[in-house]
Amino acid sequence: MYILVTNDDGVSAPGVQALARKMMEVGNVVLVAPLEEKSAVGHGITIRDPIRVSELKVEGLSQVWGVNGTPADCVKLGLQELLQHECGLVVSGINNGPNMGTDVLYSGTVSAAIEGVIIGVPSIAVSLASWDYEDYSVAAEITLTLVKEIIRQERVLPPGTLLNVNIPPVPREEIKGIKITGLGAREYENRFEKRLDPRGNPYYWSIGKLLPTQEKNADLDAPAVENNFVSVTPLQFDLTNYQIIKEIKEWGLEGLKL
Amino acid sequence: MYILVTNDDGVSAPGVQALARKMMEVGNVVLVAPLEEKSAVGHGITIRDPIRVSELKVEGLSQVWGVNGTPADCVKLGLQELLQHECGLVVSGINNGPNMGTDVLYSGTVSAAIEGVIIGVPSIAVSLASWDYEDYSVAAEITLTLVKEIIRQERVLPPGTLLNVNIPPVPREEIKGIKITGLGAREYENRFEKRLDPRGNPYYWSIGKLLPTQEKNADLDAPAVENNFVSVTPLQFDLTNYQIIKEIKEWGLEGLKL
Repeated sequence: MYILVTNDDGVSAPGVQALARKMMEVGNVVLVAPLEEKSAVGHGITIRDPIRVSELKVEGLSQVWGVNGTPADCVKLGLQELLQHECGLVVSGINNGPNMGTDVLYSGTVSAAIEGVIIGVPSIAVSLASWDYEDYSVAAEITLTLVKEIIRQERVLPPGTLLNVNIPPVPREEIKGIKITGLGAREYENRFEKRLDPRGNPYYWSIGKLLPTQEKNADLDAPAVENNFVSVTPLQFDLTNYQIIKEIKEWGLEGLKL
Repeated sequence: MYILVTNDDGVSAPGVQALARKMMEVGNVVLVAPLEEKSAVGHGITIRDPIRVSELKVEGLSQVWGVNGTPADCVKLGLQELLQHECGLVVSGINNGPNMGTDVLYSGTVSAAIEGVIIGVPSIAVSLASWDYEDYSVAAEITLTLVKEIIRQERVLPPGTLLNVNIPPVPREEIKGIKITGLGAREYENRFEKRLDPRGNPYYWSIGKLLPTQEKNADLDAPAVENNFVSVTPLQFDLTNYQIIKEIKEWGLEGLKL
């Protein structure tokens, strides 16, 4: 099986390197990732600029490509151009920091896995739920265990569905197991800091500060991770709110004179 | 009521200018939009660079800001920093080109409206379903009619839900009415064109080519627009695939030894 590995922290980030090496135990790994950090680029793709690709030499990995584009570009290019074989799995990560709740909308790492399922390849996004925990070895091992189990069981997700995995930043013996979760609320104190440049002109820094999780529902992602469970959330890319369609039809807009 | 108007084609695009002027009939319009075109940036936000904001003079509009960031940045900055009043509505558009099916994931215009509902403001994304139809007047009129009707009925969407509106590029008398729809499939022939630069180094252009809509289900967005209906799709930002959670729990991953 060929496995496309990508991320949004950039091709040299320790998380993606640990992941790529570990995935070699289950398949032929092709690493296609942004040359530069592309956190928070969401599902952006590059359509107005040319995309450059460099083949890189990385010890212990056979095929590594650095792309001057977004994570979604990497998956498109990787699957449609660079990888000359059928791809059995896209694994995106291991992200430096959690991707839970509304975070997933901004996340390049999760968007890469969404792009994988749009193209029709089973995909998983993996994040280590800490910005300053530097040991990706446990997260990589757990990802491998999860992938092996899915392969062993020959499980197939429904079309358009991916798994979003968040791993608690603790030693292996403290991890209590896996929990299948839903995306929870993710509250930020979104503020901008206004500064003046040396010439007196203003500019802003976005300083979204994560607020403590209020959510106590243990079936949601953040509470699961805070309780040292690996959170596995099935995500879909169809944003239609089907529940509300019937209610909106009753508004009578369909009979409105335009 | 204060209305924040934004888009992804840039602050000078004819679609957003037509929209902003028309929205003045129902509220105080503040236009906050990217200085440059930001199509296909998805839900990206700017967190590693400072954001510059320029107040612009545009005839007929009282408050216009140009931002060197993404549409989602514009909504965050607009609602949390620039607009000094409570905002009653975010309207994003009128986009040059359709935003239907999986398009919405890549769309800066739709992502701006998603950002609006994340912050808690009712939001609508509006697109004119053609890349070369230059008359935004009908689309702006229809948007106004829709907004007025929602205000008249005092309708409130559930939290986290926005309306994604796609308007057929035809004269008003050919528009058959509004249809409440779901997102349909959107198939692209995704290919990259490889070229060599003058120094012989390769680069790629993304050339996603939209394939003709195969979908015939008239309750979906693209068939509705092709039949000259205005498509109104309720979208949510919670990507959890709740339907599949029970099935995945039966895989037994929660009992897996890590």
